[in-house]
Amino acid sequence: LINTGTAANALALAAISPPFGAIFCHPESHIMADECGAPEMFTGGAKLIGIPGRAGKIAAAELKAALAQYPRGIDKQVQPAVLSLTQLTESGTLYTCEELALLSALAHDAGLLVHMDGARFANALVSVRCTPAEMSWKAGIDILSFGATKNGALGCEAVIFFDPFRAASVPYLRKRSGHTLSKGRFLGAQLTAYLANGHWLDLAATANAHAQRLAQGLAKIPGVRLPWPCEGNEVFAIFLRALDEGRGPRARSTTPGNSQILVLTARPLRKPRSLSGW
Amino acid sequence: LINTGTAANALALAAISPPFGAIFCHPESHIMADECGAPEMFTGGAKLIGIPGRAGKIAAAELKAALAQYPRGIDKQVQPAVLSLTQLTESGTLYTCEELALLSALAHDAGLLVHMDGARFANALVSVRCTPAEMSWKAGIDILSFGATKNGALGCEAVIFFDPFRAASVPYLRKRSGHTLSKGRFLGAQLTAYLANGHWLDLAATANAHAQRLAQGLAKIPGVRLPWPCEGNEVFAIFLRALDEGRGPRARSTTPGNSQILVLTARPLRKPRSLSGW
Amino acid sequence: LINTGTAANALALAAISPPFGAIFCHPESHIMADECGAPEMFTGGAKLIGIPGRAGKIAAAELKAALAQYPRGIDKQVQPAVLSLTQLTESGTLYTCEELALLSALAHDAGLLVHMDGARFANALVSVRCTPAEMSWKAGIDILSFGATKNGALGCEAVIFFDPFRAASVPYLRKRSGHTLSKGRFLGAQLTAYLANGHWLDLAATANAHAQRLAQGLAKIPGVRLPWPCEGNEVFAIFLRALDEGRGPRARSTTPGNSQILVLTARPLRKPRSLSGW
Amino acid sequence: LINTGTAANALALAAISPPFGAIFCHPESHIMADECGAPEMFTGGAKLIGIPGRAGKIAAAELKAALAQYPRGIDKQVQPAVLSLTQLTESGTLYTCEELALLSALAHDAGLLVHMDGARFANALVSVRCTPAEMSWKAGIDILSFGATKNGALGCEAVIFFDPFRAASVPYLRKRSGHTLSKGRFLGAQLTAYLANGHWLDLAATANAHAQRLAQGLAKIPGVRLPWPCEGNEVFAIFLRALDEGRGPRARSTTPGNSQILVLTARPLRKPRSLSGW
Repeated sequence: LINTGTAANALALAAISPPFGAIFCHPESHIMADECGAPEMFTGGAKLIGIPGRAGKIAAAELKAALAQYPRGIDKQVQPAVLSLTQLTESGTLYTCEELALLSALAHDAGLLVHMDGARFANALVSVRCTPAEMSWKAGIDILSFGATKNGALGCEAVIFFDPFRAASVPYLRKRSGHTLSKGRFLGAQLTAYLANGHWLDLAATANAHAQRLAQGLAKIPGVRLPWPCEGNEVFAIFLRALDEGRGPRARSTTPGNSQILVLTARPLRKPRSLSGW
Repeated sequence: LINTGTAANALALAAISPPFGAIFCHPESHIMADECGAPEMFTGGAKLIGIPGRAGKIAAAELKAALAQYPRGIDKQVQPAVLSLTQLTESGTLYTCEELALLSALAHDAGLLVHMDGARFANALVSVRCTPAEMSWKAGIDILSFGATKNGALGCEAVIFFDPFRAASVPYLRKRSGHTLSKGRFLGAQLTAYLANGHWLDLAATANAHAQRLAQGLAKIPGVRLPWPCEGNEVFAIFLRALDEGRGPRARSTTPGNSQILVLTARPLRKPRSLSGW
Repeated sequence: LINTGTAANALALAAISPPFGAIFCHPESHIMADECGAPEMFTGGAKLIGIPGRAGKIAAAELKAALAQYPRGIDKQVQPAVLSLTQLTESGTLYTCEELALLSALAHDAGLLVHMDGARFANALVSVRCTPAEMSWKAGIDILSFGATKNGALGCEAVIFFDPFRAASVPYLRKRSGHTLSKGRFLGAQLTAYLANGHWLDLAATANAHAQRLAQGLAKIPGVRLPWPCEGNEVFAIFLRALDEGRGPRARSTTPGNSQILVLTARPLRKPRSLSGW
Repeated sequence: LINTGTAANALALAAISPPFGAIFCHPESHIMADECGAPEMFTGGAKLIGIPGRAGKIAAAELKAALAQYPRGIDKQVQPAVLSLTQLTESGTLYTCEELALLSALAHDAGLLVHMDGARFANALVSVRCTPAEMSWKAGIDILSFGATKNGALGCEAVIFFDPFRAASVPYLRKRSGHTLSKGRFLGAQLTAYLANGHWLDLAATANAHAQRLAQGLAKIPGVRLPWPCEGNEVFAIFLRALDEGRGPRARSTTPGNSQILVLTARPLRKPRSLSGW
């Protein structure tokens, strides 16, 4: 049990990357853009290398090129260690199991391990209608940050090592980062109910359905455009400025069912960062 | 809000010590012995210097000697940065406000800041019957890890900077250590009820009374000896081996009211570590 | 005195960036691409943010956009701390003093300090024919890695803080990184002769002249193209593959006068990394 | 090749200790007392545990006790990783090969690796008259910081891994700590002459003889006392205060042959730190 997704990701990465490691991830991934350097802190200074791709998804060709630029044994460069994939991506889009398997295979061939930031793993699962195994270890994922917080839980994330041997250092890394709770069982207990009878998948299905409905409604409004398809519980919408009175440039609101909407206002002068893959 | 005492201490120290800082603390303090190197991780490698003293309390003469050995400006040595005091100590004993003021004055004179690990601050307070201010900033404490977890709360600690300017880096240090909870208000809400109407002090008073009663009972048993006075909610007892059938060498149990007892079995060959100050 | 340019840069950055700092630099800069994560190690995990621009030079518009994406006070993001400029750039090109002043002003306005990696500062100076002050502090540079190694010295670099107050932590950062030499005066003595009578500028002028001659010769060869002007002691040339028998894709050789040539072979399938700004 | 003994030690330790490792060493060892936290920086925050013993030498019984207090698998404690021995010790005394083998065996039995800080390895060797192998890997040493600087060289230390597999991370750790010199061969060339024809042993023998002569002379002076035997190239002498006019409490001077003398003035009020083992 870990309390935050940031800690789950950083611990997972620290367990498998040396301080001189290169961690390949999307430039807009949570570990790159939204964790104030947690992976750097936990790994002792590993370097995150952004691999671009549209709609929040790493492009296979870009990954190949990056791996070619980081061969092993050149001591002036950080050494390739981890590929980190986000499912759902930061754009709310989805990797299919085939896409995951392809990227994982490229990484494994180059000697890297593959981490999945599964903050919205449940939402991806119900969209694809496959088993958790098919979307994780069968697709080449070695370590999974299994998020529950964004799907209804409170301070409750898990890190799953499909090869338990790789988790040997985790108890110490967790303790020294202050994430070993003295009464953690009370928070961890959530997972029992969460996983029982597919409750976690029901929650995700509800959130996805709400998001789908929201997306369809938004698409009908003149002056609103959806840059990416809604493939889970997130909808990104671009509003004409006229529709956006009284809101800031990036307003975030949450529906009861945990579907989320990031409202992006199109600006004449420059594209919002989150739209770079559009 | 921080989820663990380990994180609260490490964050507090990281906010006020450079990576080349010396942090003076008791050799048996939690930050030295029980956090798997969390202060080192959060500060980027500061060094903890053990200052001995009986019954878990730093001796003023030893602190003076240590400060003399770490003058400023010698680049081969870490530079004095923080004095960290634990209230109640790891031996369950108490610093009086006068003792705190004396140690703090020594530290301040040498240019250090003073941190208090107040995991059992409430228990100390009700034993001494003084105000929180008298036991903290009025006694020279600059930063207080204010524990609630050991007094009934769940995953709920606070770090109090008496000079808010020193907390400037905390939001970033907290985020990058994975301690910024997305729904933290639900855990933080505990503090509202905890602090209302002196509830926290009532809890501590109950725990202290239970511990006192336990200590008195234990003292009457032949073959049981209490190495230190019971000055809060902890009782340390040395059992004759014959009384200790079927228990491990260090059994720890918790009463409902959170008073705690550490049962130490006297060993013929070597003194238990926790008794070194006896 | 510091023995390597990598250490000089990393120490300079560690003196002025917190572990949660953002260090803005060119994607091809030495600190980003060629130091195996030394800045991350010395700063305790700061993040380097690549700011693109053609011919190795940071574009002012890109810097403005990056600064806008990293406002202060958003705790999920690293906090802007340093702009690092390389003079001569990694492409052998030159920032004019006006360009330096413009970029520095943007950085200062946003509260950053400005570091210059001056591994080839001397070569830049003789090309521009200005004073060292004009190319450094008068152009807004706060800290300068003053390189001598690439201009004839042996294990001899200096870090110059134009505000000595900012160097307060350097003796300790240097010692704990193992860069305080016990007989350092024997290596440091080089600087006396190096700086006397403009010897360092003579060396740089010779190297620049050799490079210029080399560039002119190369430009006359059919099948050879120079992607960037030769503005110091480096020449980058693109050879037709037919001219490049028996050489690897990136051959590096050094002339006696320390002018350097990086031979880049044009590849049909993808552009070499170092040409991305072309 | 490494430029300083501090860096050699810290690199060696970083290659074999995790960030949550415990490194056992003498409280007065160079890595503990004289490197401003370099081991902590290079390892990412490992903890140095002082193991006392008289005359600068770790006592086997103390090591046993410490290993017993750090069993594996207790996540609140750092995990035992390295025993570091200093030869000659910081008190100028000597471990015999048998003593080294005994301490190494204790460490190996507990799963630790053994590092030797051999800043004065040559001086120890000529005192004992054994082979380098007998004093290193045959006595259980796994990694040796092989010092040359204190025996006449300039900025020239080596780290020897007797199992090369353990050195896999060194090129990257060295580069990211700024210790990969671009013209390092000019400094490294010293080792060729240094090791040829036993020159290094001749230098050490001369220094030892000078120190011996100095010790004998000092011993004859009324009011001077030698706390430890002179077993290499260091003499520690305690002067009566009357003999010590015009000198600071700890004056350090170096003879041409590199024998060293640390003059310690007996103080009435407290024993100098370096005499604590006396």
